[in-house]
Amino acid sequence: MILLRHELGEVLREARRAQGRTLRDVAGSAAVSLGYLSEIERGTKEASSELLASVCDGLGLSLSELLGLVQDRVEHVETLTAPVTLPVGASADAEHVSASAA
Amino acid sequence: MILLRHELGEVLREARRAQGRTLRDVAGSAAVSLGYLSEIERGTKEASSELLASVCDGLGLSLSELLGLVQDRVEHVETLTAPVTLPVGASADAEHVSASAA
Repeated sequence: MILLRHELGEVLREARRAQGRTLRDVAGSAAVSLGYLSEIERGTKEASSELLASVCDGLGLSLSELLGLVQDRVEHVETLTAPVTLPVGASADAEHVSASAA
Repeated sequence: MILLRHELGEVLREARRAQGRTLRDVAGSAAVSLGYLSEIERGTKEASSELLASVCDGLGLSLSELLGLVQDRVEHVETLTAPVTLPVGASADAEHVSASAA
């Protein structure tokens, strides 16, 4: 299960680092506590909508820009974690392996 | 301030209605409580990442598809609420109005 808070946290951390800024700096600009922002970046806490708006302000991003970045990231993770469909021939092989093992 | 939970709620409601489904039906498919889902749709409660994943499942949407819909909506709302820059001449008018009122 892909959890939004994990992907959101990664995107916020990447955006901050791309600006060469510290947690303390962004927390100050966004007027949120450093500890709270750190938990959001690590994906251990859900961000309230108010906090998210403040952090976007602090990073100079619009909410839609942030959502675009998160969508791109989630789309990528979905591709990586999509179930793999084996070709039809593989099922016979699988039976064979299973029979040998028995 | 544009709040994610408001826009997310509207998008979830629209997606459900577009499928001609009731709150009860989607809450059942997503295995979440009807009251919780109703609060999410009204934008009065923050959705946890786990709930969001379940509701996406219940609606047959991927998380990235949902995020795309929310991004489109937020982008639209940002356009509507962008600050308007008045032409230079308007500032003199504003002073005039202010002087008359005094």
